[in-house]
Amino acid sequence: MSDAPADTVALLDTGLLSPVRAGTPVEAAVGDRAWLQAMLDAEAALARAQARLGTIPADAARVISRLARAELLDLRALALATRETANPVVGLVQAFTKVVAGTDPAAAEFVHRGSTSQDILDTGAMLVAARALEIIRADLARCVGSLADLARAHRNTPMAGRTLALHAVPTTFGLKAAGWRELLRDADRRLERVLAEGLPVSLGGAAGTLSGYLEYALIDGAAEADPGLYLDRLAEAFAAETGLAVPVLPWHALRTPMADLAGALAFTAGALGKIAVDVQTLTRTEVGEVAEPAGAAGRGSSSAMPHKRNPVLATLLRSAALQVPALGAALTQCLITEDERSAGVWHAEWLPLRECLRLTGGAAHTAVELTAGLEVRAGRMRVNLDLTGSQVVSERIAARLAPHLGKAAAKRLLTEASATAAESGIPLAKVLATTPELAGRFDDAELAGLCDPAGYTGGAGPLVDRALDT
Amino acid sequence: MSDAPADTVALLDTGLLSPVRAGTPVEAAVGDRAWLQAMLDAEAALARAQARLGTIPADAARVISRLARAELLDLRALALATRETANPVVGLVQAFTKVVAGTDPAAAEFVHRGSTSQDILDTGAMLVAARALEIIRADLARCVGSLADLARAHRNTPMAGRTLALHAVPTTFGLKAAGWRELLRDADRRLERVLAEGLPVSLGGAAGTLSGYLEYALIDGAAEADPGLYLDRLAEAFAAETGLAVPVLPWHALRTPMADLAGALAFTAGALGKIAVDVQTLTRTEVGEVAEPAGAAGRGSSSAMPHKRNPVLATLLRSAALQVPALGAALTQCLITEDERSAGVWHAEWLPLRECLRLTGGAAHTAVELTAGLEVRAGRMRVNLDLTGSQVVSERIAARLAPHLGKAAAKRLLTEASATAAESGIPLAKVLATTPELAGRFDDAELAGLCDPAGYTGGAGPLVDRALDT
Amino acid sequence: MSDAPADTVALLDTGLLSPVRAGTPVEAAVGDRAWLQAMLDAEAALARAQARLGTIPADAARVISRLARAELLDLRALALATRETANPVVGLVQAFTKVVAGTDPAAAEFVHRGSTSQDILDTGAMLVAARALEIIRADLARCVGSLADLARAHRNTPMAGRTLALHAVPTTFGLKAAGWRELLRDADRRLERVLAEGLPVSLGGAAGTLSGYLEYALIDGAAEADPGLYLDRLAEAFAAETGLAVPVLPWHALRTPMADLAGALAFTAGALGKIAVDVQTLTRTEVGEVAEPAGAAGRGSSSAMPHKRNPVLATLLRSAALQVPALGAALTQCLITEDERSAGVWHAEWLPLRECLRLTGGAAHTAVELTAGLEVRAGRMRVNLDLTGSQVVSERIAARLAPHLGKAAAKRLLTEASATAAESGIPLAKVLATTPELAGRFDDAELAGLCDPAGYTGGAGPLVDRALDT
Amino acid sequence: MSDAPADTVALLDTGLLSPVRAGTPVEAAVGDRAWLQAMLDAEAALARAQARLGTIPADAARVISRLARAELLDLRALALATRETANPVVGLVQAFTKVVAGTDPAAAEFVHRGSTSQDILDTGAMLVAARALEIIRADLARCVGSLADLARAHRNTPMAGRTLALHAVPTTFGLKAAGWRELLRDADRRLERVLAEGLPVSLGGAAGTLSGYLEYALIDGAAEADPGLYLDRLAEAFAAETGLAVPVLPWHALRTPMADLAGALAFTAGALGKIAVDVQTLTRTEVGEVAEPAGAAGRGSSSAMPHKRNPVLATLLRSAALQVPALGAALTQCLITEDERSAGVWHAEWLPLRECLRLTGGAAHTAVELTAGLEVRAGRMRVNLDLTGSQVVSERIAARLAPHLGKAAAKRLLTEASATAAESGIPLAKVLATTPELAGRFDDAELAGLCDPAGYTGGAGPLVDRALDT
Repeated sequence: MSDAPADTVALLDTGLLSPVRAGTPVEAAVGDRAWLQAMLDAEAALARAQARLGTIPADAARVISRLARAELLDLRALALATRETANPVVGLVQAFTKVVAGTDPAAAEFVHRGSTSQDILDTGAMLVAARALEIIRADLARCVGSLADLARAHRNTPMAGRTLALHAVPTTFGLKAAGWRELLRDADRRLERVLAEGLPVSLGGAAGTLSGYLEYALIDGAAEADPGLYLDRLAEAFAAETGLAVPVLPWHALRTPMADLAGALAFTAGALGKIAVDVQTLTRTEVGEVAEPAGAAGRGSSSAMPHKRNPVLATLLRSAALQVPALGAALTQCLITEDERSAGVWHAEWLPLRECLRLTGGAAHTAVELTAGLEVRAGRMRVNLDLTGSQVVSERIAARLAPHLGKAAAKRLLTEASATAAESGIPLAKVLATTPELAGRFDDAELAGLCDPAGYTGGAGPLVDRALDT
Repeated sequence: MSDAPADTVALLDTGLLSPVRAGTPVEAAVGDRAWLQAMLDAEAALARAQARLGTIPADAARVISRLARAELLDLRALALATRETANPVVGLVQAFTKVVAGTDPAAAEFVHRGSTSQDILDTGAMLVAARALEIIRADLARCVGSLADLARAHRNTPMAGRTLALHAVPTTFGLKAAGWRELLRDADRRLERVLAEGLPVSLGGAAGTLSGYLEYALIDGAAEADPGLYLDRLAEAFAAETGLAVPVLPWHALRTPMADLAGALAFTAGALGKIAVDVQTLTRTEVGEVAEPAGAAGRGSSSAMPHKRNPVLATLLRSAALQVPALGAALTQCLITEDERSAGVWHAEWLPLRECLRLTGGAAHTAVELTAGLEVRAGRMRVNLDLTGSQVVSERIAARLAPHLGKAAAKRLLTEASATAAESGIPLAKVLATTPELAGRFDDAELAGLCDPAGYTGGAGPLVDRALDT
Repeated sequence: MSDAPADTVALLDTGLLSPVRAGTPVEAAVGDRAWLQAMLDAEAALARAQARLGTIPADAARVISRLARAELLDLRALALATRETANPVVGLVQAFTKVVAGTDPAAAEFVHRGSTSQDILDTGAMLVAARALEIIRADLARCVGSLADLARAHRNTPMAGRTLALHAVPTTFGLKAAGWRELLRDADRRLERVLAEGLPVSLGGAAGTLSGYLEYALIDGAAEADPGLYLDRLAEAFAAETGLAVPVLPWHALRTPMADLAGALAFTAGALGKIAVDVQTLTRTEVGEVAEPAGAAGRGSSSAMPHKRNPVLATLLRSAALQVPALGAALTQCLITEDERSAGVWHAEWLPLRECLRLTGGAAHTAVELTAGLEVRAGRMRVNLDLTGSQVVSERIAARLAPHLGKAAAKRLLTEASATAAESGIPLAKVLATTPELAGRFDDAELAGLCDPAGYTGGAGPLVDRALDT
Repeated sequence: MSDAPADTVALLDTGLLSPVRAGTPVEAAVGDRAWLQAMLDAEAALARAQARLGTIPADAARVISRLARAELLDLRALALATRETANPVVGLVQAFTKVVAGTDPAAAEFVHRGSTSQDILDTGAMLVAARALEIIRADLARCVGSLADLARAHRNTPMAGRTLALHAVPTTFGLKAAGWRELLRDADRRLERVLAEGLPVSLGGAAGTLSGYLEYALIDGAAEADPGLYLDRLAEAFAAETGLAVPVLPWHALRTPMADLAGALAFTAGALGKIAVDVQTLTRTEVGEVAEPAGAAGRGSSSAMPHKRNPVLATLLRSAALQVPALGAALTQCLITEDERSAGVWHAEWLPLRECLRLTGGAAHTAVELTAGLEVRAGRMRVNLDLTGSQVVSERIAARLAPHLGKAAAKRLLTEASATAAESGIPLAKVLATTPELAGRFDDAELAGLCDPAGYTGGAGPLVDRALDT
């Protein structure tokens, strides 16, 4: 261990073990510094909201807002202090009050007035999440655009459709890209919905009754006439000052926003993971149908093997996608939380939430480059499609024969002919041409046409059109 | 092992290890028999849809529909056959075709026409899920109703608000019940959304291009003019016949519906789990503020201890809530699925989906009885509240003193007075009455009023009103 | 829904949705019938243990043992009764006592004497698990044997080593098979350890003090002299009668055995999953280096595509491997269980445990066939290896040049030469032959030898030998 | 965002969101700095191992070892570079080679000779894990000692045994503490086993054949006679230089060590979580049987409520315990990894491993203080036990009566008498004294004795003795 503890602390997390997000915008947006700033933003917004209602002086709110800057606090000291109270807010309030008192002792009296740790931490968490979601959505939008371009450009580029690891029937690369796009749009719609329904402020006071806030307002006389109305107005003002939403009830122990974030982020990471495994499959040496963008010199290089250009972007995406669903489950199960505030369940949410945000955000950012620069090798797709000769169209020919031979007999005939073709290496069209049951049914050109995989892409084209139209 | 294998099979799962759903409606709705029926419903709906478009004879569709009955097939034989093909549909199509052929050989030709295993299994899964979700939503509605009654009846019933296992400030039982209700409404909204956005039919054919469906229609001439339009109409007809929705694209490898179900069900189970742990905490011998409905004689009895009446309903809820998030994560991670159909990832979805449905459904059903019959002991709540004497209102008194002494000094004074009260057993009001800093500030009646926990429930009442109004 | 509820119940689970275990030995070994039998075995063993110590009559123990047969009880009725008490033992004891009373009313008095539900359920669970583990270990042993054969046979069969989806350097199929074998041996060692350390009887009585057992013995006078000794002897006798181990302490709330099972089973499933994804990758149409055993006619067939022979065995393995780690986590987190017996956490263990056992057991059974019959295509391996020409040996040539040119320069030179070879299609040996820096260093034969991938399999051979030797 | 990016980076993770480990020894031991140092240690050990075998000059190894210091490299720059190659080693080798070249250009040629990224990262990970495990084990040992003291001191301190949230039968606090101790010893044995079986060096080269290492040795002539022997000796030397173990085979794609760590750490965190939920339950205001050590002033204080002293240590433990099983599952499922090195699965291991280590390590460290200072309130335990009067001994009296009345009748009688006692508030002994069936069976003193819960702790005492003896 180094002798320089401060130094060591600074180097607890540099992204070294999480390449998918190292240096991406979301990393800074959800780091401890950002989280501290968001909690200070919550304190300041609360002061301004109370000032709007006349329960604290406007001047105090102004001073509090002006000084609510993370760089004025010692973040590591706050982190160490968390062990005494199990959350960062108790120490934050003490330290921040001191900062304010240093400038304006009277204003310091109004810091965190009537409030509770959870209101500040949860509101801060929502601010962090909202900011991160905007970053992620912007990156998803870029990916969706690139994938639309790919889908359009390759609307009619035939390739092998693959199921259970084998060639099935032909498809087009355009349809594949359109599918990726649709999945990312699904992800984006789920993130948008979380934002649109409104990540809420947390405003409940010590045990969800807002008693502290109300008590101060009662002292001032501001709430006496109609306490419920005062609290409504306080929540609205707090929401307005933060840009967050007003919840139906204080949600200290009703963790809907956390579970919603977990769900939408696990979905998004999974959607990106789908693209990643497809890209990797198509990148395989023997397949070679796509290649990642070359990027800077050195991109994808190996420490041992000079000849390799690894699909690193897809690798990063997949590394995130494999982690987020489990982290999301850890976050979702925190719905099961006892009392007005749990001793431990609440505290178990923070890390998984942050990790879900930054892994997903890093993956979305990485996907921008992957989708924008993906190299599509139509020629190789055609070569591979021909590997299984016309066997991939055996479904089609079985369909053509079914009305004549019956479905079962047609399928049996094709199964046998496919096996013969595969074993002998003779093209299926040739095998079929010599099959007695087919005698006289099709001329050679017809048979060749039926056996051409590029002619059997079904509704791929119209499907691409419809997907791009929506 | 028994000598009677058939018998043994019949007894693989009777609910013995899953009391939360044994005998509940959802259990039958998602059992293998129901799943088989749903797949047959999908085959029949497909035939009718193709008949609507004129690509198979109406008579064939009628016969197929009439015979699509699970009881005509040997379910265990189908299950054993799954090992040959890794899915139940290949065997189902063979067996069902035989059944149809037994009645009408011509109609048998049109079974599963142009289709693929995944279209049938996924459509069947959506039918099963949709039916289960309706059952769950009906049970949630009953719970929401009961909880509204509880919230209304106990709007002003004071009880200790508890945070980190300790009394914090007072709240009301009405607010707690309103919170439970809101959480279940959140769950219901998420389930409703999944249904409203439409669980989709699966219609993609062998590799998502609908090539088989189209090929048969081309043979008939039905699709030649505009293949895209034919496929649109086929999807619409299939959706109409099943009552499911039309997806933007075939979703063989775009598993949005599965992830959405996972998310909504994990949420619902977690929400029910929150109620369960609260009920258990309040049921504890030393707390005794609520009791589960007594139910039938024997309910909650122990095999060893005659005196116990265990909170078994909450126990069942919690047992489900602890399993569903993990199962939901297993389902969500299946988004990461390669190719047009994965070799294994698709197959890993079925059990977790079923288990999420039936654990959640069983929990919702169990919660109906729990919420309808929950016994609330207001007297005991008051007794417990008095345990911490007026200490639970220390926040309030600190607030009252803050304008006079400053926030920090007020909090310090109350911390000390609380400690004195706790150690000595002297009521806080008495301790404060002798505190020099307070001399002359409050008369005894005022101090007694301030120290009455029942008078310090903050905005609990108005919050209940607002929650019930929405 | 069918009108015949009994029928429906019988068809809740036939394996239809879990092909990996449908009809495999483990399925019956962990079904509800088997579980019920195991709990009855526990009751009988307890009676015999108490008889050994003279605290119940030997005759009673004999009658109890003789009648402890699952087929004498109505399993579904027991399952439905679980909802009243949240566990199956309360109802089981009532029903079983009745069965015994029907034959010998005096003996019925001694059923479940001094016992508690958890002792019976947990002991039953350990019996079920122990039996399932033996089945799994036998199947793993078969796989290990087959893989040893493959490793030996293909010790020197060169193939492309693949990293990050691309050809890296050559390896041998023997080394790959030896690795699979080693992983299964690791799994087996973990299962063996769980068995060897002893799955324990559960013997704690109502709250882990064995008070009920002791009380009856005190009444009889059997325990008065030394209660601790009596309890030691009771635990030993119970263990001897069940074949299970004696735990250090009653483990009602110390769930080590459950967590150990979760860990070992998740490991085993994951190990089988590794083999599955490798087999699938090598099976891909473009790779074609292995094929699954053909099996019965129809094996691996598709409902739509006559030409396919899907890798269904690997698919089944992978489907299990994707589920068990999540289920194992659900089981492991049940370590966090409050009090002497939790209200819900205990109850959440049963399904995940059973599912871990039968998914893993099904996968192991499936792997027996896969490993015994795997078709290895050495010719295709060689063809694929040649796809990247001699680029896969670029590492080797860089090493050869490093002493002369310096490591960095050597790597740079090979990177460029590899790129040239890849773009131009000219073999690397040829490209290098014309590289000025190499002039005069190697003759053509040497260069050809260095560039032959089959000659660059490193320590693959000796590694296989060593692995097979251990 | 701050304008000072370096600053921001430094403040990505200070522990603010993870109080359970902020500032604990394990935090620094697994931070990025420590991880980088461990990878450099691996590079240095590899060089020394190769020098031992004469394949690189001893001087070069000495220089390499001397300069293998994390503080000479720019950690953030390395982190950012990971995005180009998806792992930190490629950049590390470049930067470290440059550092060495600055001192001794000849030595720089021997950095990372024949090696591959995964060998360095995995060996580094094992070094980090081994160091962290030692720290955790030392903390567990302290806890085990404290719990032994508690078990001994409270061997005979009666308290209510609780099941399904209710008083069951009496137990002793000593037995509870002995159980916690046993669970931690189980955890420690699992960690010890992982260390004892040996966390292995990773030595496989580019694709697990050690080809690069061997090639250099062949050039030197060191390996020509017996390549297998050379590789054996290299592995042994590398293991000796690192203090790690020699694996049977290179484990690039056989992830046994990772899964073993996941299992042992999830177990340990879960075991600590069990203690946490028990402490919290016993701390509840209404229960009050234990209190956490008071610690420094401010420990456990609330930002709102002056009177509270929250059980923060247990809260921290529980927060970790709720996260580690899910993270462990994410790590375990990485067993399912394709090829000789996966594109993404390997990369998904790093964060979950680190998080498992530091959450568990932080929890163990926190538990030292919790167990050493736990305040046990025997008086309150007795008061609570008396709450249910003698009902908690109803099992006992039922046992006493069973020989006379029959088991069923005895249980029925006690169920009724318990209900009467509970409803009327009359002590059970009194109720029983007036029960006709008991007339003449026991005198008042006997009945009082039987009804004294403190006299009915079963084998708790001897069980404590046995547990402490092992």
